[in-house]
Amino acid sequence: MFSFRITHSDQRSRARLGEIATPHGVVQTPVFMPVGTQATVKSMTMKELEELGVEIILSNTYHLYLQPGHKIIEKIGGLHQFACWNKPILTDSGGFQIFSLGTLQKVKEEGIYFTSHLDGSKHFLSPEMVIDIQKSLGADMITTLDQCIPYPASYEYAREAMEITLQWAKRSRAHFGEKTQALFGIVQGSTYPELREESLSRLMELDFEGIAIGGLSVGEPKDLMYELLELMEPLLTSDKPRYLMGLGTPEDLFDAVALGYDMFDCVMPTRNARNGCLFTRKGKLMIKNARYADDPRPIDQECTCYTCRHFSRAYLRHIFIAKEILSAILNTHHNLHFYLDIMRKIRQSIKDETLVELKKSFFSSSEED
Amino acid sequence: MFSFRITHSDQRSRARLGEIATPHGVVQTPVFMPVGTQATVKSMTMKELEELGVEIILSNTYHLYLQPGHKIIEKIGGLHQFACWNKPILTDSGGFQIFSLGTLQKVKEEGIYFTSHLDGSKHFLSPEMVIDIQKSLGADMITTLDQCIPYPASYEYAREAMEITLQWAKRSRAHFGEKTQALFGIVQGSTYPELREESLSRLMELDFEGIAIGGLSVGEPKDLMYELLELMEPLLTSDKPRYLMGLGTPEDLFDAVALGYDMFDCVMPTRNARNGCLFTRKGKLMIKNARYADDPRPIDQECTCYTCRHFSRAYLRHIFIAKEILSAILNTHHNLHFYLDIMRKIRQSIKDETLVELKKSFFSSSEED
Repeated sequence: MFSFRITHSDQRSRARLGEIATPHGVVQTPVFMPVGTQATVKSMTMKELEELGVEIILSNTYHLYLQPGHKIIEKIGGLHQFACWNKPILTDSGGFQIFSLGTLQKVKEEGIYFTSHLDGSKHFLSPEMVIDIQKSLGADMITTLDQCIPYPASYEYAREAMEITLQWAKRSRAHFGEKTQALFGIVQGSTYPELREESLSRLMELDFEGIAIGGLSVGEPKDLMYELLELMEPLLTSDKPRYLMGLGTPEDLFDAVALGYDMFDCVMPTRNARNGCLFTRKGKLMIKNARYADDPRPIDQECTCYTCRHFSRAYLRHIFIAKEILSAILNTHHNLHFYLDIMRKIRQSIKDETLVELKKSFFSSSEED
Repeated sequence: MFSFRITHSDQRSRARLGEIATPHGVVQTPVFMPVGTQATVKSMTMKELEELGVEIILSNTYHLYLQPGHKIIEKIGGLHQFACWNKPILTDSGGFQIFSLGTLQKVKEEGIYFTSHLDGSKHFLSPEMVIDIQKSLGADMITTLDQCIPYPASYEYAREAMEITLQWAKRSRAHFGEKTQALFGIVQGSTYPELREESLSRLMELDFEGIAIGGLSVGEPKDLMYELLELMEPLLTSDKPRYLMGLGTPEDLFDAVALGYDMFDCVMPTRNARNGCLFTRKGKLMIKNARYADDPRPIDQECTCYTCRHFSRAYLRHIFIAKEILSAILNTHHNLHFYLDIMRKIRQSIKDETLVELKKSFFSSSEED
């Protein structure tokens, strides 16, 4: 049911074009996956996502386990049916959410003890339970429970977290069993090259359908992140999709694709949109800025999205200041279009062997409009 | 540019079918106008409104005068261009908003002194200024400044408010001048039949393009409201559209249409939607109710709207509880579809002389689902 194939490899970088086949259709890689934490990409209808050309969304095991509960979603027919999204879905395991929402109580060999960010209630999740929950949800791609740690972390702490993540990966793999879904193992190791290498090589032995790079973009210097990405890439077998979790800025997408990574997710386009921060090739535009109050121009003259084809900055500023829901809708639409358009252009440029040129011309002007 | 014609009169009630022609297209009456207070119908894109079959929206002079300011909207090309809505728009004068938002400071012969609900700043609006603001906005139908008073009100106070509303109507008519827009005068008189009659007959002398019934549905008993509506109707010339401001429930729409009124607006479908209150033919459904937690059925099995064709009550409850923006979007879509569908059915039934039967069958079952 699940397969991945490389359709073209860039001659001037490590970038690759690929196709992930899933029970809910094919995904062209490199791909950006909009984040649908609670079984909805915030402020978008599924119809709108399809119109935007979204091929896959990401959803969160941690959130859906707590609310409404995976058993309810299973009863309704699984996550696809529940959210009315008939294309591929990837669910992350919850490790990162428990870490980032600050609800972690204790990591033990058996699993994670944590409190709910909703009501403070106490919970325990083992690697096996996380697999079972994700089987209930029924996403096309699922991930193993991992221990995500903050930056900076001591070598000892990082090793410990890496070790437990590997043990859990092994138990997850054993528990996973049948393969209508695809299971991704998660690499940890903080910013220590030798831990990253070890985590990766031991994870490869478990023969996951895909490899996810976790624990990066958590506050470490960007140069360091790229060094680690560069270091890890040759250790990855080329026949598995490589998912770089939580990345990134538009520039990051170019750089990580050039280093040979295939899948990306980030809350940036959707969250920034709700805060009135809009992406353009000339930089970010803060729509609340007073100088846009009577500006008849669209966000971006060159953009072909619904928002830019119809609405002035003056209107977008007005509805943002007036706290109208339409502000989140139109801004999210624009930012997602921006991200998806970058990925479309990146894919075309890999085909054309012009990825380097595309990056240069894409961010040609730093002058803000 | 503006015209109104009756295309069919019901033989068994006072209901009429009509057409309002405006510079931005034709509106079939009786019509329900979704409320777009701040130049957006909350949580809907204009594209979605068009798909729902909305023919006209209402917007608010008071709100747009304060934010972003009518001069900005004029600079962008008027309200249609600003909000990207190319069909008819009606703007109300602000009298009701100043009253209902509790920002009124003083009503004097020259106009209304009030404070902004946004920042407490002091403002003054005369009837002439309200016409000028609405000329800047450029709605197809505009309304005169009126003094809307609460229920109950003393006879003396009601007479005073009615008199000043009439004076302002006269001044508005004189100031209005050219007629690319249509001007609606507003009837007041609280719940006193003789004041209503007097307000109406003196207003008719000013030969407005349409008549709006103001100051009802402000807390008075429903029976009393209907007595007044019945009383006023024969005094209205039949060749002008009759706009009943702020009404109402689905039942109200049937009853007011049967009494010969043509145009309606109400925040109920949109506001209730955001509060998780959904309209069905069997009554209101409160989506947060625990019994919908695992209910795979749509809101209304018979409903053909996007929400009902795709989403379960379980999902709608989940996104409501999770405070997702999509909840407001999908709920608003359903409730607006419900209101617009009632009006479509009402119009067809007037044509078919089956309005009475439609009302009976429409609310056939009081049993909640």
